[in-house]
Amino acid sequence: MDISVIGGTGEEGFGLTLRLARAGQHVIIGSRSEEKGAATAQKAVEILGGDARVDGTTNELAAERGDVIFVTVPYAGQADIYRAIKAHVAPGKIVVDCTSPLATAVGGRAWHVIRPWHGSAAEAAKAILDPGVKMVAAFHTVSGEQLQDLERPMDSDVFVCGTDKEAKAAVGKLVDLIPDLRWVDAGDLTQARIAETMTALLISVNRAYKIHDAGFRVTGRQAWGRPGA
Amino acid sequence: MDISVIGGTGEEGFGLTLRLARAGQHVIIGSRSEEKGAATAQKAVEILGGDARVDGTTNELAAERGDVIFVTVPYAGQADIYRAIKAHVAPGKIVVDCTSPLATAVGGRAWHVIRPWHGSAAEAAKAILDPGVKMVAAFHTVSGEQLQDLERPMDSDVFVCGTDKEAKAAVGKLVDLIPDLRWVDAGDLTQARIAETMTALLISVNRAYKIHDAGFRVTGRQAWGRPGA
Repeated sequence: MDISVIGGTGEEGFGLTLRLARAGQHVIIGSRSEEKGAATAQKAVEILGGDARVDGTTNELAAERGDVIFVTVPYAGQADIYRAIKAHVAPGKIVVDCTSPLATAVGGRAWHVIRPWHGSAAEAAKAILDPGVKMVAAFHTVSGEQLQDLERPMDSDVFVCGTDKEAKAAVGKLVDLIPDLRWVDAGDLTQARIAETMTALLISVNRAYKIHDAGFRVTGRQAWGRPGA
Repeated sequence: MDISVIGGTGEEGFGLTLRLARAGQHVIIGSRSEEKGAATAQKAVEILGGDARVDGTTNELAAERGDVIFVTVPYAGQADIYRAIKAHVAPGKIVVDCTSPLATAVGGRAWHVIRPWHGSAAEAAKAILDPGVKMVAAFHTVSGEQLQDLERPMDSDVFVCGTDKEAKAAVGKLVDLIPDLRWVDAGDLTQARIAETMTALLISVNRAYKIHDAGFRVTGRQAWGRPGA
């Protein structure tokens, strides 16, 4: 399986690239600039060691090559990026939107959100792509900085929202490849309307305590098996 | 200090009553019916033992007597209850709104929310009361059922939102009286726009795993002291 990370040169995207490549996956970093994509892939290989399988290219080519396509871009540029890759994302592929509609996109505060017309950034993205693409929303509350700090355990759950259960479980499997992360089935894609805003709440908590690594865990999981089991 | 619980005969309110009274607080249960309030207080004393200080009365009298006034009512009746107690809540008092605007209020699903005109149910409540009342929002993601199960540890954090820092800290102290609960300063009252919706996400998680006791913990707290410290 090939994994693409659109916006893979950013904090969150590069962190995801490092973690997934370290777990043995082949990751293709997408960037607006092919050179920057290639240079960032080179940097990832230097950090991870020679066995790591990371390539870098344009967002469009990365979208074409990935079986699972993560999109980790700021909300302000999200729609443009989706329109740019649209023709390159074949029906049946899994796209994982990681966007939170923070108010910083319109000059506001990072602990506030704006309300996307479609309900959530993930639903807005789904409306741009071919209807046959399987859209999943995840990784909103996991910090890019922590993902990049490979020596440090991640103490977080990842809320995964999606209407296609198999696609959601496939993304959940990738989450569980990253040590100490655990996926939580948060419901269908519309639940991203809540999960995306939780990023802003975490930023508010960080602000209140002057820290920068707050995260969420879900409790009450003693009895959990697979979702729906 | 006297603590009132408006709607104290409901699941969440009765659970809060039991936990706070067990921690040694004097709790006044408010109900639409004085008789029902008194009977529920009697039931609490029977559960907790003769030392417990729990009284029951009308919502109006409970509001008048409490220094801290919890309001634990379904969203469908929330505005009516606030209008009923409005004249009885003196400026300077602390009111803790525990409402989540679940779509069940309008015949929808418990894992969906509706959007209050004021941004959050807590801000809507604040708009009804005297501007001198100190409004705090909390306890949205803690289950009433678990609060009532006194032998079972609560594995949850309580997100506390409020603009008055002293009021928020006073409510935080009450949270910390309940074993295994921990308060988290989630920011000002507008953050209730996010915290209130997280109830619906938990219900969605419960639904996905066929469980009923999912809760939230915030991680990254090793470095935490008091908010703003």
